[in-house]
Amino acid sequence: MRLKLRNIFLVYFVVSSAGLMYALLQLGQQCDCTHSTNYALRKEQLSHRGKENLPIIYVVTPTFARPHQRAELTRLSQTLLLVPSLHWILVEDSAERTAAVAELLAQSDLPYTHLNVQTPLAMKLKDSDPNWLKPRGVEQRNEALRWLREHRSPGDRGVVYFADDDNTYSVKIFQEMRYTQKVSVWPVGLVGGLRYEAPLVDNGKVIGFHTAWKTHRPFPIDMAGFAVSLSLLLTHPNARFDPDAERGFLESSLLGQLVTLRELEPRADNCTKVWVWHTRTEKPKLKQEDMLEKQGRGSNPKIFV
Amino acid sequence: MRLKLRNIFLVYFVVSSAGLMYALLQLGQQCDCTHSTNYALRKEQLSHRGKENLPIIYVVTPTFARPHQRAELTRLSQTLLLVPSLHWILVEDSAERTAAVAELLAQSDLPYTHLNVQTPLAMKLKDSDPNWLKPRGVEQRNEALRWLREHRSPGDRGVVYFADDDNTYSVKIFQEMRYTQKVSVWPVGLVGGLRYEAPLVDNGKVIGFHTAWKTHRPFPIDMAGFAVSLSLLLTHPNARFDPDAERGFLESSLLGQLVTLRELEPRADNCTKVWVWHTRTEKPKLKQEDMLEKQGRGSNPKIFV
Repeated sequence: MRLKLRNIFLVYFVVSSAGLMYALLQLGQQCDCTHSTNYALRKEQLSHRGKENLPIIYVVTPTFARPHQRAELTRLSQTLLLVPSLHWILVEDSAERTAAVAELLAQSDLPYTHLNVQTPLAMKLKDSDPNWLKPRGVEQRNEALRWLREHRSPGDRGVVYFADDDNTYSVKIFQEMRYTQKVSVWPVGLVGGLRYEAPLVDNGKVIGFHTAWKTHRPFPIDMAGFAVSLSLLLTHPNARFDPDAERGFLESSLLGQLVTLRELEPRADNCTKVWVWHTRTEKPKLKQEDMLEKQGRGSNPKIFV
Repeated sequence: MRLKLRNIFLVYFVVSSAGLMYALLQLGQQCDCTHSTNYALRKEQLSHRGKENLPIIYVVTPTFARPHQRAELTRLSQTLLLVPSLHWILVEDSAERTAAVAELLAQSDLPYTHLNVQTPLAMKLKDSDPNWLKPRGVEQRNEALRWLREHRSPGDRGVVYFADDDNTYSVKIFQEMRYTQKVSVWPVGLVGGLRYEAPLVDNGKVIGFHTAWKTHRPFPIDMAGFAVSLSLLLTHPNARFDPDAERGFLESSLLGQLVTLRELEPRADNCTKVWVWHTRTEKPKLKQEDMLEKQGRGSNPKIFV
C-alpha cells in the first residue's frame, strides 16, 4: 500500500508539475491577436497606443471654420488613427472652442488636446484675399508650443510635427520622423510651383535645397517638410514662429532659432521619397443655397456638413 | 511516515488541481489584445479582414494619371484600411496598368483588384476643358461591373460603392452601406452648389430629394450618395452606366435599371447625417519646373510624387 501510494504520488507530482509549468508558460506568451478583427475591437486596439514605449508624435494642426473643415479634419484624423503613439493638438482660430470640432475630436478615437486662439483682426485674411497674402496658423502653432512647454518636461520623449489640415500624409512620414534628435527633414510633393521641394543630401548630410522660390531663405522648406524634437523645443523656450516674418520665411523664423543646416537629419531615404503632399482643397461652390432659400426649400441647418 | 506522506500528497493534490484548473480556464479565454499595439502587428490585424463573416464592400474607384494622383490614392487607401471586409477595385483610365498604381496597391495592405480601360478619345476631357464637360470614369466603372459579373456569383454577399478618388469619406459611411438589400442612399456634403444634397425621408421611405440642380432627374443623387447590392447587379447583368447620358444623368442611367424611388433604403439616420463630402483638389501649380529645368536644376525624375 505504502509503495503504491508513493508511486502514485510521484507520478502525479511529475505529470502535474509539467502540466502546470506548461500552462504558466502559455499565460506568459503574447497572445495571437490575428483572429480578433471585428471593427469595434480594432478601434479599441488602435486607441490603446499609449502603452507602447515609442516617442510620442505631437501633431499640431491649426484649423479654422469653413464649409469643408469637417471633411478635412475627418480625413486627416483617419490617417492619424493608423499611427501609433500619436497625440493630436488641434488649435482652432476662434474666440472659443467650437462644439463641432469638440465632437469630431471626441469621436476620432485619438488622444488629443483641443485649443483655441484667435488670429488678430489685422492679420486675418479677408475672403477675397489670395491665401498667401498673410501667414496663416501662426498664433495657433505658437499656442500649441506654449501648451507643450507647460505640460511636457525634458524627460518626455517626443517629436513635434506641424501638419496643416489640407495636406495629404502617408502614414510612412510619421515613421520617418519619430526618432528625430533635433530637426529632421524630407521632401514635400506639389509645393513651391514644383513637383516636389526637397533637401539635397550628400553623405548623409543636408548640403542645400531643391527649390525654385526665394532660394535665399535660410530654410527654404515647407511646414510639412520637417519635424522638431520635443526636447529641442523645451530647451529653447523662446523659439516660436514669427507672425511678422516675410512671406515664405515662417519656417525659417522657427528653425533658425533651433538648428544649423548641418545639424538637419535627412529622412525618407536621403530625401528621395515623397510621403507628404501640399495638396489644397477647392473652395466649394455654394451659390445654390440662396436660391433654394428664396424658394422656401433651404437646407436644414441641423444637418452638419 | 505513511501519514505524513499521504497528507502531503493530499495537500499537493488539492493545490495543484486548483492551480491547473485555473490555468486551463485562462487559456480558454479570449485574450486581451489591448497590449498588442505596435504598428506592424496592427497592420497585420487590419489585413486579416477576410476572416470576418461580413458582406464585402466593393469600392470601385476610377482613376487617371495627374500630378496629385498618388496623393489622392494614398489618402483614400488609408481611409479604406480602417474598414473591415472591403475589396478595392481600382480602374485606371489607361492603355495599360501602370507601375506607379500597381506599387501603391501592393503597399496598401488592402485586398484589391487592379484593372484598366482607356476612355475613347472623343470622350476624354482636354486639359483646358471644365471638368463637367464630359462624364468621367464611365468606362472604368463599367469595367469594374464587368469584372464583378465575371468573378462573383449570386451567392456572394456584398455591396458595391462607386467612390471617386478625390472625395472625402468618413469610415462611418461604409458601416451605413454594408447591409444594403437593393440600393441604399444618404446625404453628400458640398455638392450641386449646396452645403449638401440629400434624399428626403418620411416614415422610413424616400419621398423626394433636397437638390437644386436639374431637379427633374429620376435620381438626382451624386455618385457618392448611393450603394448597390452585389446581388442586384448580378441579377441585372445588363445594367451599367450610359456614357451618352446627359450631364447629371449618369447615376440615373444606372439606378433607373435597378430600382424605383420607393425601394431606396435611406441610411445615415434617415438621411440627416453627412458622412461623405464631394471635395475637389486644386490642380497643383507646376510653373517653376520649366524654369528650374532651364537653369540645369531640374527635378530628379526618379523621385516619384
